[in-house]
Amino acid sequence: MNYRMIANIIGWLMIFESLFLAVPTITAAVYWESEFFVFLGTALFCLAAGLLITRKKPDSTVLYSREGFVIVSLSWIVLSLFGAVPFMLSGAIPSFVDALFEAVSGFSTTGSTIITDVEVMPKSILMWRSFTHWVGGMGVLVFIMAFLPLSGGQNMHIMKAESPGPSVGKLVPHVRTTAMLLYSIYFVLTFVMFITLLIGGMDVFEALNTAFATGGTGGMGLKNTSMGGYPAHIQIIITVFMVLFAVNFNSYFFIIHAKLREAFTTEVITFLGIAAVSSAVIAFNINGIYGNLSDSFRHSAFTVASIMSTTGFSTEDFNLWPELSRSLIVMLMFVGGCAGSTSGGIKISRILILFKSMGKELELLVHPKQVKKINIDGHPIEHEVVRSVNVYMVGYVLVFAVSMVILAFDNMDLITNFTAVASAINNVGPGLELAGPASNFSIFSDPVKLVLIFDMLAGRLELFPILLLFSPTTWKK
Amino acid sequence: MNYRMIANIIGWLMIFESLFLAVPTITAAVYWESEFFVFLGTALFCLAAGLLITRKKPDSTVLYSREGFVIVSLSWIVLSLFGAVPFMLSGAIPSFVDALFEAVSGFSTTGSTIITDVEVMPKSILMWRSFTHWVGGMGVLVFIMAFLPLSGGQNMHIMKAESPGPSVGKLVPHVRTTAMLLYSIYFVLTFVMFITLLIGGMDVFEALNTAFATGGTGGMGLKNTSMGGYPAHIQIIITVFMVLFAVNFNSYFFIIHAKLREAFTTEVITFLGIAAVSSAVIAFNINGIYGNLSDSFRHSAFTVASIMSTTGFSTEDFNLWPELSRSLIVMLMFVGGCAGSTSGGIKISRILILFKSMGKELELLVHPKQVKKINIDGHPIEHEVVRSVNVYMVGYVLVFAVSMVILAFDNMDLITNFTAVASAINNVGPGLELAGPASNFSIFSDPVKLVLIFDMLAGRLELFPILLLFSPTTWKK
Repeated sequence: MNYRMIANIIGWLMIFESLFLAVPTITAAVYWESEFFVFLGTALFCLAAGLLITRKKPDSTVLYSREGFVIVSLSWIVLSLFGAVPFMLSGAIPSFVDALFEAVSGFSTTGSTIITDVEVMPKSILMWRSFTHWVGGMGVLVFIMAFLPLSGGQNMHIMKAESPGPSVGKLVPHVRTTAMLLYSIYFVLTFVMFITLLIGGMDVFEALNTAFATGGTGGMGLKNTSMGGYPAHIQIIITVFMVLFAVNFNSYFFIIHAKLREAFTTEVITFLGIAAVSSAVIAFNINGIYGNLSDSFRHSAFTVASIMSTTGFSTEDFNLWPELSRSLIVMLMFVGGCAGSTSGGIKISRILILFKSMGKELELLVHPKQVKKINIDGHPIEHEVVRSVNVYMVGYVLVFAVSMVILAFDNMDLITNFTAVASAINNVGPGLELAGPASNFSIFSDPVKLVLIFDMLAGRLELFPILLLFSPTTWKK
Repeated sequence: MNYRMIANIIGWLMIFESLFLAVPTITAAVYWESEFFVFLGTALFCLAAGLLITRKKPDSTVLYSREGFVIVSLSWIVLSLFGAVPFMLSGAIPSFVDALFEAVSGFSTTGSTIITDVEVMPKSILMWRSFTHWVGGMGVLVFIMAFLPLSGGQNMHIMKAESPGPSVGKLVPHVRTTAMLLYSIYFVLTFVMFITLLIGGMDVFEALNTAFATGGTGGMGLKNTSMGGYPAHIQIIITVFMVLFAVNFNSYFFIIHAKLREAFTTEVITFLGIAAVSSAVIAFNINGIYGNLSDSFRHSAFTVASIMSTTGFSTEDFNLWPELSRSLIVMLMFVGGCAGSTSGGIKISRILILFKSMGKELELLVHPKQVKKINIDGHPIEHEVVRSVNVYMVGYVLVFAVSMVILAFDNMDLITNFTAVASAINNVGPGLELAGPASNFSIFSDPVKLVLIFDMLAGRLELFPILLLFSPTTWKK
């Protein structure tokens, strides 16, 4: 294990975190909030520590996949720990576990909160919450890799470990250039959303926060009623952008290059199809509550977009909707968005691979000597990928089951427990019942919060980096 | 596809079904019930049809794995269809879907019922329900294979497709002898239970029914309160036998041969360990309801044994227990008993393999060139087995998810839907809420009942035979 190199990258991470902390520091300065000193202090500490750590150059910059996984999981833990400090020091969230929960929920783009009254929070604290979503959405390390002078193959390990979905491809020959391209799309899309929201009538602070939280598909809002209090046209704008941020960013690259066939992959079409059908079914199911299809459809489309993109905003308390809608919403939590987007969940591409490989397995039982690869959009899917998707699914189920057993000891009802874990591991935000949109996660005990923290990180990093951190073989010589 | 041979075995199955139908026919004769004619008629029809079909000898007796799967799934469907006939003709269950549900629930050893008042049912109908459990518990085809003069390798395909759990081994060199041995253990254990219940004070009819329903880990009872009305010592006897029938039958073979180390495998110890710990936790959790630990422990041990063995009897309405107990009970539904027993669920051996293979996958990420097999009790587990367990798990999750989506349209609450599917696919019987021990499955719509019928069969036959029946490749030339 190349500990020096790991430390070096963690050092760089802390330097970058100090830059991220500049955003709430500036916010505090603009609004003359006393949190200014907290954010500035934390930023300066991170900067100093980072500079100190990175001063000592490692003898070797070689990284194997094991170091890649360790770097990713440790980075996210360090990021969250220091991200939690301002919450504690400012007094906004005095408890350490709560502050850590909030930070992990932010960076992992889950959006669950333990704050009971968001509206009394200082603006800088709110900005930090939204901004952690935006940082976490695309991945911090990929961002750092795009700037750090690391030689070629090294950063692929890290990028693979941090990026969502099974299909990390290179759009252009160089990983760094690919990362830069994807970040540019992310920047532009967020900026366009910000401007659209301004035109729609939001003030700068609201528009910026909402764009950050939507861009990262996070979901922490500025109001206790999430997006319920905003006018219909704002809700529609957010719906559209939640969908856009849940589409594979590669598609935008192809759209820019006028390759529409490459842009509308089976994954993207399946995603849009599931979203459209679910919205329609839910709209008719809730029509009895809202009385007219236009309102019903607005709320159902918003909710479906929010759940599938795993953002977690809400316009209405869908916990109170009829059972059919509630059930579909829970199912959609698991589906998630496209690979290569900022969304969480199992993801469409994985689900496609699972169904196709299941079909192939059935064929294999009938014709045991057949060797045929499954393919999506004409591209054969390597056995390696199919295998890792299957293993992912098994790991997912095991982590889910173990979490459920631990949560059971809090003596909450089954739906609360089930949807709390589903919401955490899929990075959605709200669940149902006591974990529903109208509630918050402060009701859980500290051990349960720690389990959910684990699930949120495991979900965002797609299990393996976090599981490996707790596996003895990782640390063996 | 060797259609002639498939038809031939289905013919034999119908002959055997006519023999099975002799049991309720005799019951009806003993108690002078008019259902006598219904059972006799159905039996004679099955016998005649079976003799007609088997008269034409197939040109070739060669069976490939594909035929094996088709035979197994078709046999179980034919068995259930004709098993449903007496329910309909007798007027006990007039609706076709309901009667089929009851028959599938019986043969698959699930034990869910759509009958609202069991106690007014004729004794012959009750006996048929219990006896279907006993027939379904060990598998019909394996039983037929033990009698039919099929050449060596043929029946292995069928035995593999019908037997529960990933580890179908041969105890002795010949498959037929192995099957005979396991059936002898099944007979003896059921007989011992019958005698014990008689000594415990049950009458012959009650003891026979209870022994059949427990032996197959089915769970259909004679009373509306299941086992709640019986004295404590009867409940304890049933608890012990539910545990015994959920243990791998191979263990009894080894115990008879005084090979205790082979008998107490990791699987058996894990099973007993989980059962003991869960019983203890639930006993303390429900102690507030029953006031003394002895009653609490009796009810918790009964419930845990009932759920893990997937029998589905109840002494108390555990739907009303505190959330911790309810959650644990739901988790235990998925666990199930040991492979090679009559229990359902995912099964301990599969769960052990899943956890161990997960550990190995994590090692592989760190040391990609390592080739090491996982092992249980010193026996290496073949890659083939690990792979099939992983595929099984993925198929299980997909079937579960699709079922949940369809059930959602019945607009029942999430817990009802979730536990109804869990109960069906794991062949348990009761779930929670509207699918709880105090309710029955008549509340569901016909489409939902059909989905649950599919799930019960898929669960009992461990997915692949039933899924293959609906796969086009199976029927391609």
